[in-house]
Amino acid sequence: MSPTARPKNDNFLRALLRQPVDYTPVWLMRQAGRYLPEYNETRRRAGSFLQLCKNPQMACEVTLQPLSRFELDAAILFSDILTVPDAMGLGLYFAEGEGPKFERPLREEWAIRDLTAPDPNVHLRYVMDAVAEIRRALHGSVPLIGFSGSPWTLACYMVEGGSGSPTDYRTVKTMLYDRPDLLHHILDVTTTAVIDYLNAQIASGAQAVMIFDSWGGVLSHAAYREFSLTYMQRIVAGLTRVADGERVPSIVFTKGGGQWIESIADIGCDAVGLDWTTDLGDARRRIGDRVALQGNFDPMGMFAAPEKVAAEACRVLDSYAADPAEARTAGGHVFNLGHGISQFTPPDTVKILVDTVHSHSRRASAQG
Amino acid sequence: MSPTARPKNDNFLRALLRQPVDYTPVWLMRQAGRYLPEYNETRRRAGSFLQLCKNPQMACEVTLQPLSRFELDAAILFSDILTVPDAMGLGLYFAEGEGPKFERPLREEWAIRDLTAPDPNVHLRYVMDAVAEIRRALHGSVPLIGFSGSPWTLACYMVEGGSGSPTDYRTVKTMLYDRPDLLHHILDVTTTAVIDYLNAQIASGAQAVMIFDSWGGVLSHAAYREFSLTYMQRIVAGLTRVADGERVPSIVFTKGGGQWIESIADIGCDAVGLDWTTDLGDARRRIGDRVALQGNFDPMGMFAAPEKVAAEACRVLDSYAADPAEARTAGGHVFNLGHGISQFTPPDTVKILVDTVHSHSRRASAQG
Repeated sequence: MSPTARPKNDNFLRALLRQPVDYTPVWLMRQAGRYLPEYNETRRRAGSFLQLCKNPQMACEVTLQPLSRFELDAAILFSDILTVPDAMGLGLYFAEGEGPKFERPLREEWAIRDLTAPDPNVHLRYVMDAVAEIRRALHGSVPLIGFSGSPWTLACYMVEGGSGSPTDYRTVKTMLYDRPDLLHHILDVTTTAVIDYLNAQIASGAQAVMIFDSWGGVLSHAAYREFSLTYMQRIVAGLTRVADGERVPSIVFTKGGGQWIESIADIGCDAVGLDWTTDLGDARRRIGDRVALQGNFDPMGMFAAPEKVAAEACRVLDSYAADPAEARTAGGHVFNLGHGISQFTPPDTVKILVDTVHSHSRRASAQG
Repeated sequence: MSPTARPKNDNFLRALLRQPVDYTPVWLMRQAGRYLPEYNETRRRAGSFLQLCKNPQMACEVTLQPLSRFELDAAILFSDILTVPDAMGLGLYFAEGEGPKFERPLREEWAIRDLTAPDPNVHLRYVMDAVAEIRRALHGSVPLIGFSGSPWTLACYMVEGGSGSPTDYRTVKTMLYDRPDLLHHILDVTTTAVIDYLNAQIASGAQAVMIFDSWGGVLSHAAYREFSLTYMQRIVAGLTRVADGERVPSIVFTKGGGQWIESIADIGCDAVGLDWTTDLGDARRRIGDRVALQGNFDPMGMFAAPEKVAAEACRVLDSYAADPAEARTAGGHVFNLGHGISQFTPPDTVKILVDTVHSHSRRASAQG
């Protein structure tokens, strides 16, 4: 690979590895998205969301859009969370104005037994091409994050046939309680698929990877361990740890998983993502400093007046510090939203947020 | 009041007060509801859900329906969570196939400043009549639970104009971050209204009360304390503690509040409700035995085969015990679902659940 392995701005990677940083790095979940008019314009040209995902040049274009507006410290591959089940043959589609759906939800035992992990370099070639294209286009400016859904989260969509939240995950949870053997088989195959998929992204140029366990929080304490966390642990253990001589850090994010962060920190990942319900300082006290933390500004806090947004960003930054004198430059915290940015967010507010994170963490460090 | 103060089966009240019980008592959130054909029949006769709520005789009828099918250890007033805002003049209505809505959502500053707490004995007379009617009809068999939504949860509906979840609570959260003074005013008036409402229910015959903070879990750690918990603390402090010479225990339930149970236990309530994401044993270790715990079977676990449902019920019961030899008859645990029962639940499964809770907790006690 031609690009240099270590980006010019590597604060994001250093923060994840708990190494000293110049300031607290920031990126935003779903930073390339519908709140940006230029994104909507590219999507229109692509024809549909799925065509946008499957076109490496256009995926690269939208990945870079937020970076030219804001001083973000990382890029994240623009793609859909459901590319893996789509490559498994479930037939992903998007009905206008609705969430993702599958033509062939996974419910019959024969179909579950037939499930196989796709070869990412064949069936998900378009993703790998996008990763390589984005990495080249970044010119070593900031690191590129690859990602995947967690096996449990993917299984929710696969079994429900779309988002499970309107039906309280009734179908997949009935399988969980009634036929755990079938669900475990789905999770087992999907885990293999996710390991291959993330390692192929790393081989194509991803410099960090994130696992989105968006629906882990709907599980009971016991079921979370058995049906989600175990499989994420297998993924983390199976990931390529060093590429081009550089460590490739991993971030694990269970939305609604604030009660379980000690267990998440134990699976071997480098960082734990937190939604906005968990206090960063409490999390640090509970986990210790064995992993970095990523988060956790409430995305619905982005609609307040600029000075209120800035004040809340400072509060989140300060909540991470063990004491007021602690330098932000110690690393260990990546600022982010606690969930994806809302499509209604004013882009000007994003600029205020990003700039406040940088200026406040530099200032706090200078004072510290 | 003519009925005897202490019901014949008072296991529920004793468990809440951490006094010895004969077995672990059980009731189910939304136990009078759409999963029962006889409920649907009464609702049809009433004309609409709201007419059913506002008719004390019919509200009494549906409250008692699950008790004649299952060996439940408590009755809960059949009513809607939004009766208080309706009595404040917001105009509650139900569009067919949709959730509750308000004709006049609370968004303008003048309307917020105009808000006043209704007199429950005038504007919510139908609720008090239902409480008295149910209490009479129970003939001292099991205790009657009164309830209210928490101020934050009611404010979500009042400001959003209906359920906030489709829009991620954007309107009410924008008020929270941008105009906290306005939101605090709504919460302040609503808190007074809820205290009056619950005390009127107690005066009419309710023998325990529960505060449903259904949407507390969508708040950040900091906002939860400031905008939900503080107001619930004021309510608990303002409740009538003794009626007819008997203690009236209070239960506080924040759905999605598993991270905050230590703080909830500190507000002076007798019991903390837990959704299914929190392990009962962990909760007990964190809180100590200063409050009782209520919960926490996953409502989506009710669709499995009967033997799986029974096994999961035993697992939940066993998770409460500090060690296997501990007698269930020590009190401190009220078995419930972690959220309202689904309308699709087979009634036969409810019978299995209730009977298993009783038989398993008697058996474990006999062994202990």
